[in-house]
Amino acid sequence: MDNSSSSGGRFFFGVLFTISELLMFGSLSLFVYWVMWHDTGFAWSKNRNEQFNLHAILMIIGFIFLNGQSMLVYKLLHQCRKIYVKIIHTIIFVCSISAITIGMVAAIQAQQTVPPGSSVRHFYSLHSWVGLVAAGLFALQFVVGFVSFLILLCCDKATSSFRAKLLPTHVTFGLVIYSLAVVASISGLLQVARGRLNGKEGKPNYKEFEESTIIINAVGCCMIGLAIILPYIIRNCGQRRHHHLPSGYHVN
Amino acid sequence: MDNSSSSGGRFFFGVLFTISELLMFGSLSLFVYWVMWHDTGFAWSKNRNEQFNLHAILMIIGFIFLNGQSMLVYKLLHQCRKIYVKIIHTIIFVCSISAITIGMVAAIQAQQTVPPGSSVRHFYSLHSWVGLVAAGLFALQFVVGFVSFLILLCCDKATSSFRAKLLPTHVTFGLVIYSLAVVASISGLLQVARGRLNGKEGKPNYKEFEESTIIINAVGCCMIGLAIILPYIIRNCGQRRHHHLPSGYHVN
Repeated sequence: MDNSSSSGGRFFFGVLFTISELLMFGSLSLFVYWVMWHDTGFAWSKNRNEQFNLHAILMIIGFIFLNGQSMLVYKLLHQCRKIYVKIIHTIIFVCSISAITIGMVAAIQAQQTVPPGSSVRHFYSLHSWVGLVAAGLFALQFVVGFVSFLILLCCDKATSSFRAKLLPTHVTFGLVIYSLAVVASISGLLQVARGRLNGKEGKPNYKEFEESTIIINAVGCCMIGLAIILPYIIRNCGQRRHHHLPSGYHVN
Repeated sequence: MDNSSSSGGRFFFGVLFTISELLMFGSLSLFVYWVMWHDTGFAWSKNRNEQFNLHAILMIIGFIFLNGQSMLVYKLLHQCRKIYVKIIHTIIFVCSISAITIGMVAAIQAQQTVPPGSSVRHFYSLHSWVGLVAAGLFALQFVVGFVSFLILLCCDKATSSFRAKLLPTHVTFGLVIYSLAVVASISGLLQVARGRLNGKEGKPNYKEFEESTIIINAVGCCMIGLAIILPYIIRNCGQRRHHHLPSGYHVN
């Protein structure tokens, strides 16, 4: 339910904000723990698995952790001067795009290290397609947002109506990109679990529900939690300026 | 960008509505085609793969197709009497929940048909966890929505303020559930692709990009398209009643 800026509303926002921070730090730290203690670690190396682990960590940092922080910063700092919030939002976005770009390069390079006799194939899986769409939309969102909400401030009055019209789309696409990032991350985690926890050569079996399975699933659960809480915080929680029913919806 | 109820806005809504219908029918028919012509078909039988195919089809019908239609009906029929639209929305929801329930039973039963010597394991994978969360939220959304927006109409005036407050949350959770449904569906498709298109016993290899791979990925692409277009239609497109910036966002 909607929460206005009453003290109860602020407390509720604080609780949800804390939970989402825990989920973001949780997904990242649990995955790093899994990579270090249940897998072979991560490195930019000729070891395919290690480099794929690096890819996964960078993608979780870029798409889940930093992307989430950049959205939350607007809700957290709503009383600060808007231009400062925008600049922080942009800086986190730049860090996020950097992590995603390096993560993509790591995956492409890791894909080239195949066993002798096998052929190299790039971007054939649904996981990579979702990731590509999410990264493409993320880059587009950054360019459009940067030009519209920062560059166009140079002619503030002339462009304010355009920016007001663009903002709801910017917010919707931000949440869409986050949901696609969760699709890509969870499908990637599932590939890792199915591929590596196969019960062969002394490895645990994904089905047997040992610590390795629980941690992988817990990382996924953090992301599911974020896919539920973040849209709620952005759309329905905290400081209220407008009675924001989506277009066409009206109560009777 | 936002579209008011101008003729241009209506045309734009029509285009997006047509695309989303194509994507919903496309995901379902392409997957049925894949099951019939590239796999062993579907049946409620002792054949594990056939029953999992039935599970997948029922889940796509319930979570992607009918769930999408029930959300779009509000935007399409915004000029009809609200109570009729609510009833249609509810009927489609009931069909959707029925398909999802039967689909879940099909999966649980199929999971029990394991090769001799193997142990039966239920709900161990991340795919099943996401599916469970999505189905749980879907059931909750249905119960809360049914009670609040239909039953409470019996004391219309006394509850209108409560319903007005609940509506934005109902809409947000509708879109959250749809995004979780896409996560579950795409991770499920990827499991099917990795598990069955393994290049063994004359089966195609997922990596080799033959027709079987392309169709599975095309089903996933339809779902990605829906995860992008549906939130945009619901939030930013068509008949506009309110200037629906999310809470706390304001242009300057």
